[in-house]
Amino acid sequence: MVDTLIASQEKHRLIASDRVEGTKVYNRQGDKLGSIKNFMVGKVSGQAEYAVIEFGGILGIGNDYYPIPWDMLTYDEDKGGYLVDLTKDQLEKAPRHSSAFPEYDHNYGRTVFDYYGMAYPYPFI
Amino acid sequence: MVDTLIASQEKHRLIASDRVEGTKVYNRQGDKLGSIKNFMVGKVSGQAEYAVIEFGGILGIGNDYYPIPWDMLTYDEDKGGYLVDLTKDQLEKAPRHSSAFPEYDHNYGRTVFDYYGMAYPYPFI
Repeated sequence: MVDTLIASQEKHRLIASDRVEGTKVYNRQGDKLGSIKNFMVGKVSGQAEYAVIEFGGILGIGNDYYPIPWDMLTYDEDKGGYLVDLTKDQLEKAPRHSSAFPEYDHNYGRTVFDYYGMAYPYPFI
Repeated sequence: MVDTLIASQEKHRLIASDRVEGTKVYNRQGDKLGSIKNFMVGKVSGQAEYAVIEFGGILGIGNDYYPIPWDMLTYDEDKGGYLVDLTKDQLEKAPRHSSAFPEYDHNYGRTVFDYYGMAYPYPFI
């Protein structure tokens, strides 16, 4: 029943947070890049700012965690996963951390957005 | 280490999605109302629209799930939980569903916002 439920949710505008977690992430070449560990949300705004992607496999040295601006994710109904327009090479050089999450403050956020060539959109308040 | 990490995250602007899930919810009278099961997020917008609160205990008939507009939640650092300005009475009459989630479409959303006396803020697209 849960699977049926999830399948029906995927067709729709909203998705349950615990359904996002664990979802696989692919690139446009069809490579599986990893899966979503969790995502970072503004406590007040409720805005999901980063998906944190676990990319252990491709580096072969345990699990690393890559924050990706939420807007970079596209949900692919057919694949049942997220698409990100990045090559493995781009990811290997991307900002990442261990399972000990750093503080996701504005400076860290700016580092992430800079790497992906995007303007940092959140006011420094 | 995880607990230390979580403690440090709580001081900050962002919170991890899997940290929101399971967090206790209180009202202003200090009653524990339940805990957050998950939250419903716009796939494209990344906007958390509803927290889904599990309030089994107070009704005594298994678990019910209450969608609450995200803006109704306030995080209380001291309590380590969310505050919602609702009495138990108000909750017992609130829109709820079973563990089989309904479609969170605009009509359902409007029912929820109406109950809480709030304007429905999402465009019907």
